[in-house]
Formats: sequence, C-alpha cells, structure tokens
Amino acid sequence: MKHGITQLFIPGPTNVPDRVRRAMNVPMEDQRSPDLPALTLGLFKDLKTAFKNETGRVFMFPSSGTGAWEAAIQNTLAPGDKVLMARFGQFSHLWVEMAERLGLEVNLIEVEWGKGVPLDAYEQAIAADKAHDIRAVFVTHNETATGVTSDIAGVRKLLDAHSHPALLFVDGVSSIASIDFRQDEWGVDLAVAGSQKGFMLPAGLSFLSVSEKALAANKDNRPKMPRSYFIFADQITLNDQGYFPYTPPTQFFHGLRASLDMLFEEGLENVFARHHRLAEGVRRGVEGLGLKLVAAGPEWYSDTVSAIYVPEGVDANRVMKIAYERYNTSFGGGLAKLNGKVFRIGHLGDLNEVMCLAALASAEISLADAGAKITPGAGVAAAHAYYREAHANTGSERAAAE
Amino acid sequence: MKHGITQLFIPGPTNVPDRVRRAMNVPMEDQRSPDLPALTLGLFKDLKTAFKNETGRVFMFPSSGTGAWEAAIQNTLAPGDKVLMARFGQFSHLWVEMAERLGLEVNLIEVEWGKGVPLDAYEQAIAADKAHDIRAVFVTHNETATGVTSDIAGVRKLLDAHSHPALLFVDGVSSIASIDFRQDEWGVDLAVAGSQKGFMLPAGLSFLSVSEKALAANKDNRPKMPRSYFIFADQITLNDQGYFPYTPPTQFFHGLRASLDMLFEEGLENVFARHHRLAEGVRRGVEGLGLKLVAAGPEWYSDTVSAIYVPEGVDANRVMKIAYERYNTSFGGGLAKLNGKVFRIGHLGDLNEVMCLAALASAEISLADAGAKITPGAGVAAAHAYYREAHANTGSERAAAE
Amino acid sequence: MKHGITQLFIPGPTNVPDRVRRAMNVPMEDQRSPDLPALTLGLFKDLKTAFKNETGRVFMFPSSGTGAWEAAIQNTLAPGDKVLMARFGQFSHLWVEMAERLGLEVNLIEVEWGKGVPLDAYEQAIAADKAHDIRAVFVTHNETATGVTSDIAGVRKLLDAHSHPALLFVDGVSSIASIDFRQDEWGVDLAVAGSQKGFMLPAGLSFLSVSEKALAANKDNRPKMPRSYFIFADQITLNDQGYFPYTPPTQFFHGLRASLDMLFEEGLENVFARHHRLAEGVRRGVEGLGLKLVAAGPEWYSDTVSAIYVPEGVDANRVMKIAYERYNTSFGGGLAKLNGKVFRIGHLGDLNEVMCLAALASAEISLADAGAKITPGAGVAAAHAYYREAHANTGSERAAAE
Amino acid sequence: MKHGITQLFIPGPTNVPDRVRRAMNVPMEDQRSPDLPALTLGLFKDLKTAFKNETGRVFMFPSSGTGAWEAAIQNTLAPGDKVLMARFGQFSHLWVEMAERLGLEVNLIEVEWGKGVPLDAYEQAIAADKAHDIRAVFVTHNETATGVTSDIAGVRKLLDAHSHPALLFVDGVSSIASIDFRQDEWGVDLAVAGSQKGFMLPAGLSFLSVSEKALAANKDNRPKMPRSYFIFADQITLNDQGYFPYTPPTQFFHGLRASLDMLFEEGLENVFARHHRLAEGVRRGVEGLGLKLVAAGPEWYSDTVSAIYVPEGVDANRVMKIAYERYNTSFGGGLAKLNGKVFRIGHLGDLNEVMCLAALASAEISLADAGAKITPGAGVAAAHAYYREAHANTGSERAAAE
Repeated sequence: MKHGITQLFIPGPTNVPDRVRRAMNVPMEDQRSPDLPALTLGLFKDLKTAFKNETGRVFMFPSSGTGAWEAAIQNTLAPGDKVLMARFGQFSHLWVEMAERLGLEVNLIEVEWGKGVPLDAYEQAIAADKAHDIRAVFVTHNETATGVTSDIAGVRKLLDAHSHPALLFVDGVSSIASIDFRQDEWGVDLAVAGSQKGFMLPAGLSFLSVSEKALAANKDNRPKMPRSYFIFADQITLNDQGYFPYTPPTQFFHGLRASLDMLFEEGLENVFARHHRLAEGVRRGVEGLGLKLVAAGPEWYSDTVSAIYVPEGVDANRVMKIAYERYNTSFGGGLAKLNGKVFRIGHLGDLNEVMCLAALASAEISLADAGAKITPGAGVAAAHAYYREAHANTGSERAAAE
Repeated sequence: MKHGITQLFIPGPTNVPDRVRRAMNVPMEDQRSPDLPALTLGLFKDLKTAFKNETGRVFMFPSSGTGAWEAAIQNTLAPGDKVLMARFGQFSHLWVEMAERLGLEVNLIEVEWGKGVPLDAYEQAIAADKAHDIRAVFVTHNETATGVTSDIAGVRKLLDAHSHPALLFVDGVSSIASIDFRQDEWGVDLAVAGSQKGFMLPAGLSFLSVSEKALAANKDNRPKMPRSYFIFADQITLNDQGYFPYTPPTQFFHGLRASLDMLFEEGLENVFARHHRLAEGVRRGVEGLGLKLVAAGPEWYSDTVSAIYVPEGVDANRVMKIAYERYNTSFGGGLAKLNGKVFRIGHLGDLNEVMCLAALASAEISLADAGAKITPGAGVAAAHAYYREAHANTGSERAAAE
Repeated sequence: MKHGITQLFIPGPTNVPDRVRRAMNVPMEDQRSPDLPALTLGLFKDLKTAFKNETGRVFMFPSSGTGAWEAAIQNTLAPGDKVLMARFGQFSHLWVEMAERLGLEVNLIEVEWGKGVPLDAYEQAIAADKAHDIRAVFVTHNETATGVTSDIAGVRKLLDAHSHPALLFVDGVSSIASIDFRQDEWGVDLAVAGSQKGFMLPAGLSFLSVSEKALAANKDNRPKMPRSYFIFADQITLNDQGYFPYTPPTQFFHGLRASLDMLFEEGLENVFARHHRLAEGVRRGVEGLGLKLVAAGPEWYSDTVSAIYVPEGVDANRVMKIAYERYNTSFGGGLAKLNGKVFRIGHLGDLNEVMCLAALASAEISLADAGAKITPGAGVAAAHAYYREAHANTGSERAAAE
Repeated sequence: MKHGITQLFIPGPTNVPDRVRRAMNVPMEDQRSPDLPALTLGLFKDLKTAFKNETGRVFMFPSSGTGAWEAAIQNTLAPGDKVLMARFGQFSHLWVEMAERLGLEVNLIEVEWGKGVPLDAYEQAIAADKAHDIRAVFVTHNETATGVTSDIAGVRKLLDAHSHPALLFVDGVSSIASIDFRQDEWGVDLAVAGSQKGFMLPAGLSFLSVSEKALAANKDNRPKMPRSYFIFADQITLNDQGYFPYTPPTQFFHGLRASLDMLFEEGLENVFARHHRLAEGVRRGVEGLGLKLVAAGPEWYSDTVSAIYVPEGVDANRVMKIAYERYNTSFGGGLAKLNGKVFRIGHLGDLNEVMCLAALASAEISLADAGAKITPGAGVAAAHAYYREAHANTGSERAAAE
C-alpha cells in the first residue's frame, strides 16, 4: 500500500498547482452564457502573450496536443504536399507518422537519437529546393523522449537566408511556457502546445498558435485537407465573440485563467530561468552520480526533461518499477529503442528546488535497489551545490540591481 | 450581482453531481502507470454495458461529441461514399455539414422542424437503393434543438426489411444514458455520445460505441478517409492494454468511474424511467401554462429537452435574458430559425422533481416579466399533480411487488 | 435512491457557495508561517466591519456557536452573577441552560413561543434593579426555532433610559450577516455568530464580537469563571500578531476571506435587503397556501427562517420525511413543544428567488402528499407575484436614483 | 514568488491526503438528517478501534486538541483536586498552565527538556500518596516541542504496583494514530487527540477517548467543574443516536471516514511501523550530518517529530526562514527556551521515504545557506542506506512469512 504524496517526475502531465485545481473545480455553466466571453476573450489574448504571438491568433481545441498537430496540418496543407521533417525520438517519429497518414510527402531526415533538428541537413534540403516545393518545415522544439531541444531560431535563419517561403511548424508541447519560445521573432507559423505541461493543467486541452501567414495559407486558394472537427473557419467566427463551435470544456478555461495568471505573476522570463536552473541542478546530479544523459551535448540539453542512461547491466524498467512501487515515484521510461536503457526525469511546470532534490534522491535509491553501483547522496550533493550557487548568483544580481 | 445556486436547465452541459466532481479532483498521474489499466479496462467494459453493446467496443476520445462524429465517419467511410441523412434541427444540420465537408455524398431529406427521422422517406430511399450504394444511414436520436426523439428501432426494422447492409450511425449525444438506447438490439453500428449530458461529467470526453460490423468495415479493403487523431487502429492496440495513443485526460476517467457507478446503482432502466417522469412533468407544466412545444406530437417528445414556443408577441431571447440576469437561471435558447421564438428546458442528468418544479417556476416568472400573459403557478401546479400521481403509481407498483 | 441536488432549506448549515468551497479546499499550512498574518489580520479587521464594531474586537474560536456563547460568559461574568434572560424557543432555552450550568443566577422571563424579547418585562426588571445587580442582559436576536426576531435596539434604549450598566449579550448566530445588526450603534457588548449561517461557511468556526466595555469587564478586578480554551487573554496576545494560541483551522480562514469578499461585494445593506425580500416572498407563499407562521405578528417575523404550522390533522414530521425521502429536500423540523406541529424553511445565506420558489414548490408537494388540503401552485404563485413586484420596485428605485 | 509544492514538515497540521480532501469537499447537509447516524455511528465505533478502547467511548468536539484537554479535566475533576504532572517542553507546559487555570492543585515535576515523564519521580509521588489525594496523573505521550515520547505503560505499571486509583490522563495529540497506543491495555482513562496529526485531517476536530472508569468518575457524586460546551452528558445522549448537541462540522466526518479507512486498510500496526521506519531514517540523516537531537537518548526518541540542534553559531530561526523563503519548506521552530537553537522536522501522517529524503535535502541546503558546516548529501545518504536496509528486511520478513 502506498503512502504519502506521489512524486510525479514525468515530462507531463505535470503537477497541477492547487490554485489551478481549485479554479477548475467549478459547476458546469452554459457555454452560450453572456458571461463566458469575459473569460474566454481574455484567455485568447493572454495565450498570444504566452506564445509571443502578437499578430496571429491562438486556437484552443478540446483534444490532446496530438489533435493540435492534426489541426495545424489539415488547415494549411494538402495531401501530396512536400514537407521537411527530422526524426530523432518517439515524438518526432509520431509526428512523421501523422504526416504520412494524412498524405503528406515527407522529406525525412533521420538523426541520431540524442541530437535534434540538424541545421546543416535542413539547410541543404532548403537550398536544394529552388522550386519551393517544400510547403512546410517541421521542428520538434523539445523531443520529450530524449530530452533534446532544437534550435528554432536557427531554422528560421536558414529559411530566411534562402528566402524560402515554407511554413514553419513547431511542436512545442513539452517546451512552450517552460522554455524560451518566441513565435513572432522566430517566424513560427504553427506552434502546438498542450495543457498538461508548462501550462500546468490536466490533459485535455490543446493550443495551436498561428501566425498571420498561416491564417493566410489557410484561406488561400490551394485545396486543403478534408476536415471538420479541427477546422479553423468555425473557430475563428465564434472565437471572435468568445464562443466555440461545439461544447467547450469550460472548466479548463477557469484553470487556464489561473495558470496564465501564475505564469505572468512570475514573469515568463523568470519561468524560463527557473526551468533552466532546476534542470541544470538535475543534470549536475546526474553527473554527480556518474550517469550519462541521452542528449549528446550541452547544446541539446532540454530544460524540461532529462533522459538518463542507467549503468550497463542495470534494467531501466526495473529502476522505474522500484521507484513506482517502493518509493511512490513516477519517472518517465525509455521509449522505443531506449526502452530498458533509459529513464527520464521530467522537470517542468510547477516545480522547485526541493522537488528536484527529491527526484534525485528517489532516483538514487531506486537505482541502488536495482543494482546500480552509485554513491548515495552524490546526486543530491551535486545538485545542492549548484542550487546554492545559483541562488547566491541570483541574490548578488538582485543586490547589484538594487 | 448574482446570489445562490445557478439553475442550469440547458440540455448539456448538465449538472455534475458532487460525487463526480469530487472523484475528478485528483492530482495528475502517469498515463503509463501500471495502475491505470485497473481503472480504464473497467471503464471500457462498463461503457459497453451503458450502450448495451456486448459484441463491439467503445472508444473514448479527448474531444467534444463532434469529434466522435468525425471519428465515426473517418474510420468507416471514404470520400464520395453515399449516405442517407435527415435534417430537422441545428444538430442534425451540423452533422450534415460535417458529412459534406468530409466529402460524403449526402442523400439529404429535409424534415419539418418538430419532427424527426421520417421512416417512410428513409424506407423509400432504402428500397430504391437496390445496388446498395448507400454506405451508411444516419439517425439523430435526439435533436437537441427541437426536443425531438427519433425511432432508431424503426430504422433498423426497415433496413432489415430490405436486407440493406448500410452501416447505421446514431448521434446519441443528448440521449444515451438518459433515454432508452439498445445498440445490439437495434443494430446500431456507430453510436456517438458525449461526457457532458447523461454521463453527468464536464465537457471534454466523447464516446464512440462501435459494433463488430463497424470494426470490420474499418478494417476491410475499401479505402477510408485520411485520419490520424481519431484513427481506430492506435486506440485499439493500446486500449486493449488499458492505455491510449496520446495523453488521455485521466481526471475524466475517475469522474466516469463515479458516474457509471451512479448509473448502475440506480439501474439504467430506472434512469430512463426517471428521465421520462421528470420530462413528462415539465411537459404538463408547459401545457398548464398554455404554451406549445416545438415537438409536433407525443411520438416525438424528447425526455431530455423540451423546446417551448413563447406566446406571440413575446421575445424568447428576452425571456432567457431575464431568467439569466434576474433569476440566475440558464435556459437553452432557440437555435437558427427558432431563435427568438423558442426557449428550451434541458431536463437530463442529475435531476429530480423539485429541480424541475424550480425550472417551471423560473420559466413562469421570467415569462411574466417578459410580458407573457400566463397564470403564475399554473405550470408548477400541473407538474406537481403529475409528480404526485407518478409517485403514487410507483408506490403502488412497489407495494404490489412486495 | 436519491438524484439531483439536495434542496437545503434548514436554517443552517446553509449552502456553501462554490467560491467558498473552492477557497477552503487548500493544502494544510504552517499555523506559525510568516505568511499567515497577511490573511488573518485582514479577517479580524473585516469581521469588525461585518459586525459594525469599530471599537472592540472579534474573536474566532474553533467551535460551534455554542462555544462562543460559553466564551462570552466565562470571560466577563462570575458564578453567582445575576443575568436577565427571556425564553421563547429552543435556542433561547439552551442559552438559559448554559447560563445556569455555568452558575449564573438567571432572572428568567418566560415568553409565549412566537414572540421574542419582551421589552416591557425587560424594562420592568431593569427599572427595578436600582442596585445594578444585574450584570448582563441577554437577547436572542433571532430565535431559530420559531422564526422570531427580537428588537435589540429597543433593549439598548431601555438600558440607556435607566442608565443601567449591564453588559448586553446577543445571540446572533442565525441573524448576523443576514439581518441588520449594528454592534456599536446598539451598544452590544458580546455578539455571538457562527460560520454556518450568514457567513456561508461549513460549521466549525464561531465568532465572538466584543465591545471595549466587554474587554474592560474581562480585565477588571472582579473574579471571572475558570476558563482556558475560551480565555480571551491568550487570543488577544496572539491575534494581535495574526496568530492563535492553539492550532487554528486555517482552511476556514481562506473560506472566510471568500465569504467576506462576497458579502462586501454585494454590500451588507443589500445582503439584508435580499434576505428581507426572499423571506417576504416565502411568507407570502405560506399565506397563499393558507398556512400560519409561528411568529405571532409581522413585528416578530424573521428574515432568515420561517416556522410554519401544518394544518390540523397533518403530521409535520411526516411532511418533513416525505420532503426528504421523495423530494430530496431538507426542511427544519419543529423543536421541543413544536415537534410534529411545525416545519421550518430556512431562507438565509447564499440564496435567490428561484431557490425560494423551489422551497415553496417542495413544501406544497410534500404537504399534499402528507394529506394537507392545499392548492398546488398557490404558494409559488403568491411568492412569484411578490418577487416580480419587488423586482419592479428595485428597478424603479434604481431608475429613480439614476 | 514561490513555486511548486510546499514541503510541509511541521509536526501538524500534517499533509491531508487527496483522498481525505476529496471526501471532505461535500455540500452542507442537515445535521439532523435521518442519514447522518449511518455515518457517525460508524465513526464512533471505529475511533474506539483506533484508540484500542473497547469498553469506553470516544467524543468528538468541534475544537482543537486543547479543547479536548479541557473537556477531559472539566468532566472528571473539581477545582482544588490534586494532580500529578511533569513539565519537559512547551506542550506539557501548556497543559500544566491549563490545569492551574482550571483550579487544580498541580504536583509538578520539572524535567530536563529532552527527557519525558520520569517514572521514578512519578513512582515516588504515587508511593507517598497513601491517602490517594492525587485524583489524576497526567502524561504527555509525545512532547511535540522536543521530540520525546514517554512510557505510558510504565506509568500504568507503577500505578498498579501501588494500587493507586488515580485517573490516567494522556495527551496523545501528536502520537495517537502514528505511534503505538493501547488505551485498554495501558489503562488510560482520558486520551486526547486532534484531527490534524496522525488522523491526517485539517485542524478543527478533537477526539477524547474515555474509559469506563472515566465515565464513572464523570457521573459520581463528587462535584465537578462548571461546564457546558464540553459537557459529556449532552454528547452521550445524542451521540448514542448518531447526533450532536450543537451543529457539528459534518464535512469533517466525511474526511474522518476516509482517514480511518486509510488507517485500517494499511493496518494500525503497519502505520506505526511505517512511522518508526521513516523517523529512524530521519534520525540517521541527522546523525549523518553530525547534528544532535534534543531527545536525550533512544529511549526518548519520538517517531513523529525530531527536534534538532543546529550547530553552534548558527541561528535556527535563520535556517527556518531560508527553508521557507528559498526552498518552500516549512519546518517546525524551536519553542520557548529552544527558540533559535532548534528546528524540528515533523514526520507523521501521510508520509513516505522520498518525502523524508526531501526533508533532509531541504534541511541540508538550508543549513548550508545559513552558514552551517555540513557535508551536503550526507544526511540523504545516511537515510537512504537505512531505508534500503529497512526495505530489504521487510522484504525478507515477508518472504520468510510466506
């Protein structure tokens, strides 16, 4: 029998703050009530701020993030359209699979797992596409399976360098609202996010933030995909008045109000800085334990999730099972080819230093139980040192600024 | 400023019982946790009971009911397929629109609003289709806009009479779990329901209950529609193990557990009988006030929603506005061509006699405020008489049975 | 099996608004945390506003209202002290019982149930007490058992007329925050309230609002009663810093913050006006049904609870049982000598017109089922007429004021 | 601005499990409803099981534990009665203060803080009291201020050895339901507990478990103290029917149902074993950090709270402040003469190993920030080793038993 709080260190769903849980625990209301727009119009506006999307708009779909992936594709592309994609983990893989199912012709670049979007290979493909046949370029901002973050600004740069008009699609499900993301500045056309990660809500709502260019592409004369549930047109008409084309999950809107308030009260840049600080502490802890990340180098490190190789001879699934059963801790597992070799610590959302120390402590004891030769306390100590130092720096900066 | 409980008499979202709200107010959990299947496999099993579907299976999608409509079509039909549909209200209209958007060739029968699926016209179409070109027949079980229930068993009968192999699609969003529904007995192939009606949950989860025949159609050699989010195949593989192809809204599963428990504790037949009793009381009240239903006759009466014409010269929208602002009551409005002429009382879900009396009392006072000449108390008195009588009958039956 | 919302029409505990329930659903916190005073000092201040007590202070005890009665007595009186009390219902009776148990010498005036504090008899006693032996005069502001409100200002007036220094104790458990109460203006020295009535919280917290004079009496040289849990001194020392002498139920403080916010957002005078309007509607409904109140005349009518005689030959307990079992409605019962003859409708707290109409509708149907000859709908119709009229007046006043 | 879960490591209020929070989040109900006894009678019965009190009864008061202290004294003792007490911390001190305020003549034995009830001194006093003037012997089972547990069985033994008839009072607020307690076997007459510790509820409800002997003492002919709120008689009459003499906080009863279910599902002995294991881990961690407990030796160690001396030159209050502000952790502080020298880790209630590791990690980092020279990770590592070993032993025992 389990006792005490479950330590949830998966890369989403993340811990829903009590404030958000309270906000969501509302009686049902009329989705056509005159009061609803006062809530929803504010959300649409503030979501744009969260995505740093001043000129476009954000859609909210009752769906998982996968649904928003589909919405992005169906509304701007047609079967047979050529798209550029890279595969370097389970989630970029699933996105490729969706693209193919929906009839896109995928120019697929396979990348070693542990790295992200290959700017050079992308550049080659873009440079070669003089006819501008490539209608869209896809970037998985944060590959949740490997803990790898890709360089969106770099992709924008190479598109610009070649004056290539392709739409830029970004899967930001496990990055947006946790890791720096700048839709306008980076020229992202369709950015997908989900409620259950940096937005600190339960699963069930997805966000799709689209640029003016994407909206224009949606409306231009080229045929698009057959679609209905995820169609932009109906959403736009009704969203502009604060309503929705089908029954929306209004309880989520109340939760989102609270979570956006929390994000803005902290300040988005501070949210990103906190995620970086917490993540770096976890990485130091991993290093302190003598373990290796899947991410191939610091340039790929993800501030929302760390995928960690267990030592040779240790079964990562057994580590997770022990963590879950003995220590009431949920870690993420190794997906697809990483299965059994890797466990993942999600470090995003409503999180603080002590929670990360607890994650490391729990990882240490579970690893040890599973037969790994690690030095107990070494992970915690290394993270500890980093957090103290980081705090001191923040403190001095603060003092200096005053 | 508003005080007290909002009286929610719209035909969904319905009141979420406290027991369900409590059950849903859970911390997030790992959607791949070893404990999840113990919950979800039971839900899949019990949903089949709720749909009276012994041989097929039920899907749960993170979407509104509209999403399940799309899932039903995309997975069993192809663009260009011929389907038989009838339009007699806003929701049957929207379903037709979706069918057309997804490329189906709709044999559309227009029906006077206030009536439902026309068995004779359907029979004619079916009889005429010797080549069996019609791949599917669509039935809106309960048209929420007009308060009209159609005869699904009748449609099955005529299909059988003509040995027609068309798939039978049913929109049961505002009927299933409130009004008698028998998937196997009636040979329904794809039945759509949503969380926010008879299932007494918040909006955000849809159910699609499919027959063996529909599953076979999904897998046969004919091409289907391009699809990914709503694709059956991925769901089937993972659902069989108690999991899902993308992050599911696990909080809903806990709520669904509670709502199914409540439905079964009461007994489905008793749930239906209660809905009938409550609805009949409302109708008596409407009659007591000298008002007319949109439903063209008793054979069309819906036990989940009553659409009510306001007297000549009265603005139904003003009635609703008064109800909402002065009396903290949400009624449904008249949709599309019924706008301004009709208001609707939803009477489904977690409801009892006194709540229906309150609905009538609130309607009476709002109508009077809006200038309608009605006899105050006459609606309540008529419903009152019926409920007493119904109770007495139930009582005698009970006594007789003992 | 019961369905739908339970109609709670008892005179407390009252319906806790969802906003308050949400606010209270907090994780536990350190009762010595540096953050607590920011919450609690505001509550102490705002409670004074709610009691209209500018010069004294308000205590919060983890207890029922009965505990605050005891606190009031123990901290200002000594065994053997003479006090003036009147008994005219179950709650004034219990207060007398407590006074006697704690050793006070009660000058007890028995009053016919249905009336309240007898100003003439009180005046006689006060006038006769030239030696000022009477240390305290007790007034049950609102006798919950009979639905009778007493005239506190009148008592103050007679004390002043005779320059009598007695402390004025008021039981305001079922009045304060619902019915006009003015501690300073009326010279009330110790006013008792509970969380579960006008303050719209669950039961478990009591309030004792004390004047400067009461505080002085607490500290003067006369011996007081032995006491510890309810002792003022410890509370004062710690309350001034925002803390408490023993573990306080902090969840209530968050709820109280929300309920005070709601009261002030509406405006106390509007809260009182609303209670009067709702109560008057219920009384009209009672009259419309041909029933009689226990309250002996309009000057005694309570705006928070109506005690209603059932017709001769009808068993009030059966009415309540039917209401509870068949119609999911909780009415208050007849207490002590009113048992079986009376049922009570509580109409206080988070309440609106339609809820009162529902109460009447439920009373009507339950009475009829119990064999009462009443005209169904007559109660609702009478209340209905009053509410419409009241609304129109409010409207005109509003218009006139603009 | 704070983020993430607050780590609550105070010795109460403890973390309320989500299951209990959910159970408590109920609408208000009629405290005289026919359904209430089904809930409350089960609680009274099961509380007796929790106290291991087969022959007496348990009272529930809407009050803090301090109220139940007062109830115990007022109902069985009279002013001027002689009682034997020992003082060795803030809470035993407050109990003495109450006894004196209520007029008892306290034979007070001062004990060095860090030790508990002195069996030898108690025996001397009891042996000397040939006239049996001592009416009651008081034992603070667990002194929360110092983390010291006393030997109740030992006190019973010496009373029996001298055939002394004194009533045995036990303050079990921070022990019962966490540490082994056996009312019948140890002949405890009045045992006090509170909702917010081992019972895992919010603060606001107290329990007083009384023996037959205590009930007899309550009813015998000796005069008792004046009392009303906490009087046994009224409770007994109504409790026997499942009701209460004044409005009870019914929401707590639903929470208590859930918490008792959790305690029994785990098994009381397993609950005690878990508390011991978790506590021992924390103590190992404290030792690993080179710190000293206030408890003077293993025979005094408390399994619910550890009071820890900070190193010379470090300010314990600063450690706590840092923990609270930088690391979102609430530790208990040093009370009275321990102020500034001690911080306390509460380790009781709904707790597991990783939470204790987090407590140590947080203590380590806070201590370091406050200038303590400690080896980061040393505390975690020591606890870690113990938990692994404990788990292995539990495992082997389990295997052996099978």
